[in-house]
Amino acid sequence: MIYDLIIIGGGPAGLTASIYASRHKLSHLVFEAGVIGGQIATATEVENWPGDKSVTGMELAKRLEDHAVSLGMNLQKKIITELKQEKGVFVCSAGNEKFEAKSLILSTGAMSRKLGISGEDKFLGRGISYCATCDAPFFKDKPVAVIGGGDSALTEAVYLSDIASKVYIIHRRNEFRAQEANQDKVKNSKKIELVLSSTIKELKGDRLLKSILVENVTTKETKELQVEGVFVYVGNTPASALAKPLGVEIDEKSYIKTDLSMRTNVPGVFSAGDITGAAPQAIVASGQGAVAAMSAYKFIKGFAEGIAVVNR
Amino acid sequence: MIYDLIIIGGGPAGLTASIYASRHKLSHLVFEAGVIGGQIATATEVENWPGDKSVTGMELAKRLEDHAVSLGMNLQKKIITELKQEKGVFVCSAGNEKFEAKSLILSTGAMSRKLGISGEDKFLGRGISYCATCDAPFFKDKPVAVIGGGDSALTEAVYLSDIASKVYIIHRRNEFRAQEANQDKVKNSKKIELVLSSTIKELKGDRLLKSILVENVTTKETKELQVEGVFVYVGNTPASALAKPLGVEIDEKSYIKTDLSMRTNVPGVFSAGDITGAAPQAIVASGQGAVAAMSAYKFIKGFAEGIAVVNR
Repeated sequence: MIYDLIIIGGGPAGLTASIYASRHKLSHLVFEAGVIGGQIATATEVENWPGDKSVTGMELAKRLEDHAVSLGMNLQKKIITELKQEKGVFVCSAGNEKFEAKSLILSTGAMSRKLGISGEDKFLGRGISYCATCDAPFFKDKPVAVIGGGDSALTEAVYLSDIASKVYIIHRRNEFRAQEANQDKVKNSKKIELVLSSTIKELKGDRLLKSILVENVTTKETKELQVEGVFVYVGNTPASALAKPLGVEIDEKSYIKTDLSMRTNVPGVFSAGDITGAAPQAIVASGQGAVAAMSAYKFIKGFAEGIAVVNR
Repeated sequence: MIYDLIIIGGGPAGLTASIYASRHKLSHLVFEAGVIGGQIATATEVENWPGDKSVTGMELAKRLEDHAVSLGMNLQKKIITELKQEKGVFVCSAGNEKFEAKSLILSTGAMSRKLGISGEDKFLGRGISYCATCDAPFFKDKPVAVIGGGDSALTEAVYLSDIASKVYIIHRRNEFRAQEANQDKVKNSKKIELVLSSTIKELKGDRLLKSILVENVTTKETKELQVEGVFVYVGNTPASALAKPLGVEIDEKSYIKTDLSMRTNVPGVFSAGDITGAAPQAIVASGQGAVAAMSAYKFIKGFAEGIAVVNR
């Protein structure tokens, strides 16, 4: 069977695309091998999903999933390993299995970037983490460090400060790029200590992380901090590699380029959510997912002008 | 006082912009002289706000408003009558009152043009609709009519034909102004019947719409069509007139042009929602409102690179 649409990635963008695809009666599959809801599912508390003052990430993800399922979402818990276009049909391989569709929505999100220092992989799960929500409980009453200066770094630092005995924020610049509200929370916490203009040079320990060596980028002085956990928030790597063989245009940061109607440069291929370099916010991803599905509908029906997509 | 931001329009785009502005600690005002929530507030039932399988438009609007208010939204129930830029400051006049801000978000929406016939308001939400994407599922296996002859009318008629039992397209001329490709789709559909050179004269029914009286403009003959839904596509009026004196670029359909970060061509002026020609969907407007507020924050703080706006 050739589906109307295959959606790759089951975060807020992909789930909303499925909701809109169902409402437009597009036969479609959603591929998500990991957690349904994507990164939002791992958020302890979400306070910026409009209309909900506070909701857990898991609850929001479940609501989005339930909504999509109620309209008939066919979820495939498989990893798509290759995308090709053959005779006008998109062929999605999950290992040996093949799935075909007339159109694609790429909503694969963006993965956390690594520090790139020695021992980072060795200490993964033994002190190094990219997800405080997942791993913070292991560091109850222990000292930890957060690396980074953006919103993720600061919000996770605040979260960690409720659990760990002490939280250092190590940031290579002398000011943060995070939202003011998040900066205030950090400054108001007695458990958080800022280590600015500094980078992490070395991870020390035997089987488990015991301490880190930190260097001031100006004075070149180093100091050793006794921490058992290091939470890395230094950016994201968009999961756009799959898109390249299709000829989809990707920018210098590896984000997929789209127009306002979430079309890529390849007719029939649309994209939505973090993978497009959009603000990593569930509401933004969700809005884009809706637009991508409406654009896919327009493409499949061969409309000269869309019914509900951006008018340019 | 010079505010960081003034948001004009209190629909999903404006309310979400306020939520994000508050989270970014931007001092701001929201101007909405009409119904809070904009068009969505008038929807009887909303089934496409992701995460809520069914919610009344009024309830959704209230939740968005409550969320914004809980974070400190300062709502001004006044009509902005003029916008000017003076010495780098935006001056918003509401009659004789003046309000100043460093940045603006224009989220004034777009009104659907009405038929202008008796009963149109009475049957709103009881048979009359201006948005098939929003309301089509309520007319599953029921006969409906679409009024209009442009691309929106024809594409929405095709969409409706997948859901309704029968779709009449009523158009006052004897040919369509829609693009050929869209006309072909209509002609190839067995469920669509054209009623050309005709206008709608009367809406009949008790509490719910039951039928319509249609008049042939040439012969003056009338006939009654049994339809439970009438979808009106006789044009939109984007509320963009205010933006013109600022030098904001507006397209040929009167929509405000933006980039993916919801920036207009005028630095400091952002736009979100239906006014940008986006799909008239609450989730799309809301996502854009979030982006617009984050872009405004970036603009006000003078960030060379934004924290959370689209990366192009």
